[in-house]
Amino acid sequence: MTKLAFRILQLKPFLLSGLRGILPSYRKLFAFRYYFIFFFFFMLFESLLATSPCFLKLQIIGNISAVSASLYVGKAGPMVHTGSCIAALLGQGGSKRYGLTWRWVRFFKNDRDRRDLVTCGSAAGIAAAFRAPVGGVLFALEEMASWWRSALLWRTFFTTAVVAVVLRGLIDVCNSGKCGLFGKGGLIMFNVTNENAVYHLSDVPPVLVLGVIGGILGSFYNFLLKKVLQFYNSINARGRAHKILLASSISIVTSCLLFGLPWLSSCLPCPIDALEACPTIGRSGNYKKYQCPPGHYNDLASLFFNTNDDAIKNLFSKNTDSEFHPISMLIFFITSYVLGILSYGIVVPSGLFVPVIVTGASYGRFVGILMGSRSSLNHGLFAVLGSASFLGGSMRMTVSLCVILLEITNNLLLLPLVMVVLLVSKTVADAFNGNVYDMIIKLKGLPYLEDHAEPYMRQLTVVDVVKGPLQFLNGIEKVHTIVHVLKTTGHNGFPVIDEASFANSPISFGVILRAHLIVLLKKKVFLAAPIPTGIDAFNQLCSDDFAKRGSGKRDMIEDVEITEEEMEMFIDLHPFTNTSPYTVVETMSLAKALMLFRQAGLRHLLVVPKFSCARLTDRVGRDLTGFEVLEAYYGNLGRLAIYPLDSFENKDCYEGRKIGRGLNLQAIEFAGRGDTDET
Amino acid sequence: MTKLAFRILQLKPFLLSGLRGILPSYRKLFAFRYYFIFFFFFMLFESLLATSPCFLKLQIIGNISAVSASLYVGKAGPMVHTGSCIAALLGQGGSKRYGLTWRWVRFFKNDRDRRDLVTCGSAAGIAAAFRAPVGGVLFALEEMASWWRSALLWRTFFTTAVVAVVLRGLIDVCNSGKCGLFGKGGLIMFNVTNENAVYHLSDVPPVLVLGVIGGILGSFYNFLLKKVLQFYNSINARGRAHKILLASSISIVTSCLLFGLPWLSSCLPCPIDALEACPTIGRSGNYKKYQCPPGHYNDLASLFFNTNDDAIKNLFSKNTDSEFHPISMLIFFITSYVLGILSYGIVVPSGLFVPVIVTGASYGRFVGILMGSRSSLNHGLFAVLGSASFLGGSMRMTVSLCVILLEITNNLLLLPLVMVVLLVSKTVADAFNGNVYDMIIKLKGLPYLEDHAEPYMRQLTVVDVVKGPLQFLNGIEKVHTIVHVLKTTGHNGFPVIDEASFANSPISFGVILRAHLIVLLKKKVFLAAPIPTGIDAFNQLCSDDFAKRGSGKRDMIEDVEITEEEMEMFIDLHPFTNTSPYTVVETMSLAKALMLFRQAGLRHLLVVPKFSCARLTDRVGRDLTGFEVLEAYYGNLGRLAIYPLDSFENKDCYEGRKIGRGLNLQAIEFAGRGDTDET
Repeated sequence: MTKLAFRILQLKPFLLSGLRGILPSYRKLFAFRYYFIFFFFFMLFESLLATSPCFLKLQIIGNISAVSASLYVGKAGPMVHTGSCIAALLGQGGSKRYGLTWRWVRFFKNDRDRRDLVTCGSAAGIAAAFRAPVGGVLFALEEMASWWRSALLWRTFFTTAVVAVVLRGLIDVCNSGKCGLFGKGGLIMFNVTNENAVYHLSDVPPVLVLGVIGGILGSFYNFLLKKVLQFYNSINARGRAHKILLASSISIVTSCLLFGLPWLSSCLPCPIDALEACPTIGRSGNYKKYQCPPGHYNDLASLFFNTNDDAIKNLFSKNTDSEFHPISMLIFFITSYVLGILSYGIVVPSGLFVPVIVTGASYGRFVGILMGSRSSLNHGLFAVLGSASFLGGSMRMTVSLCVILLEITNNLLLLPLVMVVLLVSKTVADAFNGNVYDMIIKLKGLPYLEDHAEPYMRQLTVVDVVKGPLQFLNGIEKVHTIVHVLKTTGHNGFPVIDEASFANSPISFGVILRAHLIVLLKKKVFLAAPIPTGIDAFNQLCSDDFAKRGSGKRDMIEDVEITEEEMEMFIDLHPFTNTSPYTVVETMSLAKALMLFRQAGLRHLLVVPKFSCARLTDRVGRDLTGFEVLEAYYGNLGRLAIYPLDSFENKDCYEGRKIGRGLNLQAIEFAGRGDTDET
Repeated sequence: MTKLAFRILQLKPFLLSGLRGILPSYRKLFAFRYYFIFFFFFMLFESLLATSPCFLKLQIIGNISAVSASLYVGKAGPMVHTGSCIAALLGQGGSKRYGLTWRWVRFFKNDRDRRDLVTCGSAAGIAAAFRAPVGGVLFALEEMASWWRSALLWRTFFTTAVVAVVLRGLIDVCNSGKCGLFGKGGLIMFNVTNENAVYHLSDVPPVLVLGVIGGILGSFYNFLLKKVLQFYNSINARGRAHKILLASSISIVTSCLLFGLPWLSSCLPCPIDALEACPTIGRSGNYKKYQCPPGHYNDLASLFFNTNDDAIKNLFSKNTDSEFHPISMLIFFITSYVLGILSYGIVVPSGLFVPVIVTGASYGRFVGILMGSRSSLNHGLFAVLGSASFLGGSMRMTVSLCVILLEITNNLLLLPLVMVVLLVSKTVADAFNGNVYDMIIKLKGLPYLEDHAEPYMRQLTVVDVVKGPLQFLNGIEKVHTIVHVLKTTGHNGFPVIDEASFANSPISFGVILRAHLIVLLKKKVFLAAPIPTGIDAFNQLCSDDFAKRGSGKRDMIEDVEITEEEMEMFIDLHPFTNTSPYTVVETMSLAKALMLFRQAGLRHLLVVPKFSCARLTDRVGRDLTGFEVLEAYYGNLGRLAIYPLDSFENKDCYEGRKIGRGLNLQAIEFAGRGDTDET
């Protein structure tokens, strides 16, 4: 949004020089006056945005501003983030600060429900961004959720159905035209319905070529994006001034290109059978006048002087095969490609979807123009297939992209070709690098457990990656020891060991979570002497005490005040211990354990020695327990690039683990299942 | 298909009496002459069909015959079965009997690949049956596969994309009309595209009511189907003659109803603005003449004297609001409802989808007629929504049904209403009973692990359901013992125990599979003395020996011949043992273990005692191992109604665990993962 200001500043000399041709464009700029007011909000809260990722309003305002200012950023990411934030708010019992609390939401205060809510929220985001309810469900399934169950499927479906009905209802209400541009175009964003989509088997080879090139372009896009993000990260790390400066520069560059490039294009005469006014004077349309004489239009300006959505609409439109000059289309493609890469990563809430669709559409249309009459597909359909190939090449999804494309274009007859293009481009691109979301996650150093095991993991056993020495607690433990262990380690779970009188070795009793230990310390469930209490201990506590706290509201061990006297007291951990944690034997391959971790959605995994009793006589004094080491994935982080889910569990805001931009992605709630959930 | 014969027999008196009105219908019957030849095949192979579930050709021929004879059965089930069988053939290395073997398919000879292939095959079946490639993927995901991974998603997508392209290509090739009716209607089966699907918020309440009633009707449908199937099963169990008699009776009843009921309906005058010839003389159409005077048509005959597909097309058609009389529609609905229930379960390869769609469409259309002009939706759209509600009420799927409906009707604008109807009817019906596929599985006593835990399972631990005594083998075991254990138990895996010299207790080494033990016995990998062999043992074997065999080709212990002398020899099991099986502690709740079983796709689970060393001193002589009991789910089958996946692993044909009919479902390959797969 900074860009809007700069664009105006930069326009001033032009205005002063009195160039009449610029005026319509300038007028168009001020058609954005509705959003203008957001500019100030945005600047005001810019810093807040950087530090408070869940700040919903800023997400919304920031993205509206950025998109309406024609920055090459999409709205899908922020929409997903917005949906997820609302869901996360519900999952943490509302927000006390803003007075948004309800008693009934306390039931959601656990890992599983919060994760499910966030998944539904992200699906709703995609559903709203593209008016694609089914696509939203599938996107959440294919790209967002790292753990899935059948009940979640229909809950997500329910969420997006509500989105669809509300959207459709609002469109119905707004049909009278009272809501401005909202609802224009109906439920389908880029309608390319064609009753008789004519294509033959002979059209398949060019479509395959389209897919191959799209795959190469897409993977190269990911590669460049990575380099640019690395560069931006180094700038953004230097402070707020640098961030704003970077954003402003990109804004200026965008403005210069958008206003400068149409000069390169020559004026084309208006087609006689044009369906709309030519040249277009006003908000949007296929024929922008720019600097052209009456009866003529500038094709590049027609693309640049629209929002990205309108540009896509223009590119997808049928019966406009002669509207764009090939050179103009090439310029537009290159500009979109470059700006799409440059605009992602600056301090603006932004998504990737729309820029990729625009770029892909221009590439597809360019290929369509080159093919000319040799193909029976019209250029609009080529643009759709180009978008598909570029999306496939960059994002590497299949079913969800296919359904989203189907829902935004409403051309079911094109489905076989779209499927083929997606598969070809995905396959080609997979040969070069990974998908764009994984790349961004890695770049930001965010902990994310891949859903497939790398080949080297088959050569390692779980013992190889386990971190020692084992930190454990006794069944009835001294308060001092607990505090010490909590303060000196970062683990979120600890094995509880019993010195059984009837056995000649200690017995592992179960696992207790850090969060629960802190609750016990805070509520001072202490005993003067080490005597088992049994269930009586629960009298001092209620289930609400163990409810999962919201983001940033977790109790820290440093905040718990304990007197010297209490330090010498005891806690009976038995009633609060999870007595049946998930276990693996120490000889299990890392790959197999990883799959268990992912598939069962675990956060902790106990590694059990195979020869527990043997060890007992063999090496007395080491680990006398059945449970060797907790948190198998905690150790050797760097070497193996496997991250423990639990070490990040105190940061939550949104499960949308992949979508979202820069600063916002600091806050992640993983889709791992907390040990507190029984099933 | 028996029905066709009976129908002709039954028609004879009519023909002889010279009623002229019947003649067109009779002529229509013989329009099925193409399929007539199949009748004999069907009768010939009827018995084979009952015993050889993978007999592909019969599936195909039988279903073509049944569907073309207007029996109230669908084609989705057999198509899924066909696709799955082809996939299963690939997964077992082709068929030697038919000379269809390839060297490269040997790579698929393992549990995981075969299961994945079968999933892809079933998706292809749905994709082909409804020309709905994306719907096929989602159906496989939502209803077929009990275990899912991201790689499988795009493989399934690839399969259905190939189906879509081939279908589209054939339609293109057949456009000239050389292939008869194939390809007529293009890629979309029941096109109800409407550029301006007009509906408003006021249309939502009637749609909700439609959903509620659809849910009730759907669950009642499931209830009746269950009762009828129970009755049929008791008849079918009596032998082949009874089976044929039952099928023939249903066939006769169907014929009588289809030909008799239109007499109840009065003749309607042809509409002046009819888009097609009225009355229709010929194969299919909206206006059947039956017994009416010229210029008139019989609306019930228009529905009955078509294949189900054409009936659906008629019901979904727009601008035909006055075509059907409400009483006719009611009669048609009741007939479809009853015949749909009666026709499923006789010895004919049949599916449920199409009858449910027909019934739902007639119900929806009836509601539409009742609503009259109070709703802005036309009757065709009501029929679509009625189908959705009935499908939702009976099958309880959400996303896949939604996408399938979208792909067969091509009306994206209706999506919000379809989503709402599906959700409402599913929710209402779930209050009464389970979905139809689960019901059929339970009725047939097929082992199927639900993907959710019943509440009572939370009250039990895994030890409660474990079956004793523990059957185990020593690391170096006598051949005689192995043979004895294999012959006296039905387990498919056994723990291997080592008497370690350095420990004061035995050590559990791992798990060995029954199939692998039989290979060792067959290849006679014997030792004269109990001395460890190490990896040398592999010299006698190659990896192919351990490849998963095809259906019905598994080696049985009874087939292995071992001399008395060999019985006294030894086998070193160490090199062949899976040393890192999945384990749970004995205190784990049954619900939690069930989820692990399902989510990780396991077939065996070891239950580890918590106090293994304690027990050692406590109760010497019982189970001295770290591993208490193998195959947690094996015991107490009846009481808990949890079935062990592995006890059925020697039966495989198709993963399509829910679709398929009667006799064919005897053959099931479960989606559980074999222990042979490392990850």
